[in-house]
Amino acid sequence: MNHMLSEIRQQPDVVRNILRNELEGVQALADEIKRRKIAFAYVAARGTSDNAAHYFKYLFEIEHGIPVAIAAPSVFTVYDAVPHLGEHAFVLGISQSGEAPDVIAVIQRAKEAGALTACVTNTPTSQLAQVADYCLHIGAGEEIGIAASKTYTGSMACLALLSTALSPERPDRLEFLRRAADAMEASLGLDEAIHMLVERYKDMQGCVVIGRGYNQCTAMETALKITETSCISAQSYGAAEFQHGPIAQVNTGLPVILFAPEGRTFKAMADLATKLRDQHPALICISHDAAFLAGSETAIRVPKAVQEWVSPMVYAVAGQLIAYWLSLSKGLDPDTPRGIEKVTKTV
Amino acid sequence: MNHMLSEIRQQPDVVRNILRNELEGVQALADEIKRRKIAFAYVAARGTSDNAAHYFKYLFEIEHGIPVAIAAPSVFTVYDAVPHLGEHAFVLGISQSGEAPDVIAVIQRAKEAGALTACVTNTPTSQLAQVADYCLHIGAGEEIGIAASKTYTGSMACLALLSTALSPERPDRLEFLRRAADAMEASLGLDEAIHMLVERYKDMQGCVVIGRGYNQCTAMETALKITETSCISAQSYGAAEFQHGPIAQVNTGLPVILFAPEGRTFKAMADLATKLRDQHPALICISHDAAFLAGSETAIRVPKAVQEWVSPMVYAVAGQLIAYWLSLSKGLDPDTPRGIEKVTKTV
Repeated sequence: MNHMLSEIRQQPDVVRNILRNELEGVQALADEIKRRKIAFAYVAARGTSDNAAHYFKYLFEIEHGIPVAIAAPSVFTVYDAVPHLGEHAFVLGISQSGEAPDVIAVIQRAKEAGALTACVTNTPTSQLAQVADYCLHIGAGEEIGIAASKTYTGSMACLALLSTALSPERPDRLEFLRRAADAMEASLGLDEAIHMLVERYKDMQGCVVIGRGYNQCTAMETALKITETSCISAQSYGAAEFQHGPIAQVNTGLPVILFAPEGRTFKAMADLATKLRDQHPALICISHDAAFLAGSETAIRVPKAVQEWVSPMVYAVAGQLIAYWLSLSKGLDPDTPRGIEKVTKTV
Repeated sequence: MNHMLSEIRQQPDVVRNILRNELEGVQALADEIKRRKIAFAYVAARGTSDNAAHYFKYLFEIEHGIPVAIAAPSVFTVYDAVPHLGEHAFVLGISQSGEAPDVIAVIQRAKEAGALTACVTNTPTSQLAQVADYCLHIGAGEEIGIAASKTYTGSMACLALLSTALSPERPDRLEFLRRAADAMEASLGLDEAIHMLVERYKDMQGCVVIGRGYNQCTAMETALKITETSCISAQSYGAAEFQHGPIAQVNTGLPVILFAPEGRTFKAMADLATKLRDQHPALICISHDAAFLAGSETAIRVPKAVQEWVSPMVYAVAGQLIAYWLSLSKGLDPDTPRGIEKVTKTV
């Protein structure tokens, strides 16, 4: 077995370990967020971690009412500017290696400006961990596959746990997180079904991946995994954004992957599937809903429904497995994507 | 002549009109931003307007130190949540029609929460204009082409003028804006050269468009225009983000459009061009720099260099002309893109 599949399979335990080991550290950060009366959050990340940052944006805006800006690190590194990030700003960096120079620069400058800083990393000895006031540890063990998997869902688990610590009035949220780990485990059982489904798409040169709301990050991460491991153009969109122009590219046979999980976005995604059928794309639908999937050409049924705010961890698994098997069906090695290294350093 | 080309050509005058007519209204908003001691900005927009929102993010963070969050409107409309946007928040909606329900919802909720609200629109009688505290008028006249052009650069001109009004200590900024309108006019002279260059790409099924910093929006908007009017997959990336995974899709002959304008991002873009050549893509470089372009397979030289903060208005013209001529070379009508309407209403 190669590293990517092995690491995909480790994910439920990575999440369970985070729930067991990180609650104390996360609680200290949650208390400080409350004490400081944080007015807005600002998050810096690149690549897969940037997709986890988009999860953080939905989570904190919806569950905690804290507006979240995704940083453009070049503002700090290329333009040498420092937006005003004072004591009421919570500035978060996400980097599995903890060595991303641009993410470190944002946290460093924000700390100097008096902001509350934290990081999510798989490398607690890293420079990022040393610079940030608080560090949430993914604790996933070394990730060898260049296409990140367990550090992605692990980052989301750290952030979901932080959200739980900010909501002591809802102690059942920890239980919902545990159930998400179980649902991830159940989703690993899709392995062979996805392997067979993907075979018919092995000649695809490009595809579109669409999600909405909490699972926009799932579409972004699935597209990134497919691009990295299959060396093709996979492009992600939010469902609303997609209808403001990019929908023009849909034509007969274009593979379109739709994530339609349980929760508030389900109806919008089902409506979009209906609208798209006019153009006859090859729809690949991933959902918990048997009735919806019964009308889909290619259906992947996620076996366990969970609360929507934790669903991106569960649906990520299906996306990773699609990328993994597509890469193998193309005769490629998903562990060694073309032109990229495990730690990409940009400024 | 069809509407798209006609409207592309109107852009220098649209910008000049904004500089002449909108300074007073913009100054009132700038004064209120200062009086309120705005701590952060929050901007809602869709489609082309969302690309103008990304320009706003760089402009306000770099020039004014105001952190900017790009809204995920579904937080408000699908999840019925309202992030805390109080009196120190500046909330901006951008919509040429002023009828985007999700953008209106964000402004409405923010106003109720006590935030300072404003809009940029081409329709001063619209619902958006009525809801917002302040309205910046694009004043471009009716835009008939479904692929927006003059309302895009017009939106940026309104925002650049607002930036100028926030900087009374730098009165020369208004002159730099006027020069940008002249440079846009000069760029219209690229029309025939781009027409001829694009012919060799008429069979392209997809491409990648890359920018950085201020001109990340130029890459986003060029990719959107190409997708809309040529019905193919054009995908945009920031130059740093691109190297964190998506670079794996580059192979021999893949058209890659690179924007390398004057200013702080020039070196990074030139370095990326060098790195990409190892994979032998068909590089289409757009720059002011003759030496850099001399080494490019397909070179488009923007005739007048301007200050970097206004360059997205100038480089947008080159991107629009590429999209326009590519559409015609494919035998399509750029005025009637497949599957989209002039006013897309999403919630």
